[in-house]
Amino acid sequence: MKAYLAGPDVFLPNAAQNAEAKIKICATYGLIGRAPLEDVAQISTSPPGDVWRAIFRKDIEMMEECDLIIANLTPFRGASADAGTLLEVGWFLGRGKPIFGYSNCATSFSERSRAQQAALPDQMQAVAVEDFGLPDNLMVPGAVEQGSGLAVTLPPDALTRPFNALDIFEICVAQAAQRLGLR
Amino acid sequence: MKAYLAGPDVFLPNAAQNAEAKIKICATYGLIGRAPLEDVAQISTSPPGDVWRAIFRKDIEMMEECDLIIANLTPFRGASADAGTLLEVGWFLGRGKPIFGYSNCATSFSERSRAQQAALPDQMQAVAVEDFGLPDNLMVPGAVEQGSGLAVTLPPDALTRPFNALDIFEICVAQAAQRLGLR
Repeated sequence: MKAYLAGPDVFLPNAAQNAEAKIKICATYGLIGRAPLEDVAQISTSPPGDVWRAIFRKDIEMMEECDLIIANLTPFRGASADAGTLLEVGWFLGRGKPIFGYSNCATSFSERSRAQQAALPDQMQAVAVEDFGLPDNLMVPGAVEQGSGLAVTLPPDALTRPFNALDIFEICVAQAAQRLGLR
Repeated sequence: MKAYLAGPDVFLPNAAQNAEAKIKICATYGLIGRAPLEDVAQISTSPPGDVWRAIFRKDIEMMEECDLIIANLTPFRGASADAGTLLEVGWFLGRGKPIFGYSNCATSFSERSRAQQAALPDQMQAVAVEDFGLPDNLMVPGAVEQGSGLAVTLPPDALTRPFNALDIFEICVAQAAQRLGLR
């Protein structure tokens, strides 16, 4: 089975090595990992104004080819996970394909939302903060639970990992493999 | 046609009036607006630990009933749009239903990403910033363009509106109605 490896990992300085390491972990558990990164060479031949469209199309094509998603839901530039990753998780939910997700962050969404709230313009200070003790906006754990029956995989020791650490990813892959009957 | 009115508007202190105003604007353009808000009364009967699941299920049911989405993509607690809204846009993309979106924010995603970058832990300072002059991560305008052939509706005068202003929403609804052949 092919797993779409969604996440802002593509923006890491060592994105290629990171993708390789993730694909290797997937292989250990009987999954074929596909990282959206692989297409960069093809995309660079597009006219400059169309590069982003080429990346979009390639990512959608790769999602079409994959059987499931394993999403890096670690918060990225704000209280929530990366925007592109969230959109992709929603796509898999709409298609009814399995959804697995993990986060390297041990603090709750409500805690991170309150921290971001302080930086908002005055008119936004009164905006309600969801307080369900969840790792992100309820639609995110909701999608993962509907898509796999599982919760978002979090650090079991409640210690936040560096953004590029892969031990929580590996726990998530192991759970996915078990859920999919691969082990 | 029924339009799912996605957005973090549900967190506003005057969420009910905001939803009413949006539904009224939709009606002017021949669209039936549905705001996820309407379900609060039904949901409050769920056991406390299950409230978020009840909200998730109700939102998905409402999405199933709707023919298109009009998403408030104004940045929310970070560089990007609200997490739940992004997930819902992805769901409509996966289902192949029309997608319209707007943002009250006139600054680019790259500018907002750089501002957020400064607040990130050291290990994240080297993370690449997408620089396509787009209003959000490329998957967001990509989804809107694939879902309607249109760009994300932005302030035509390049002036950021307050979060709850509805004039850009109205431009977006007018464009949607035209695109859908309602006017």
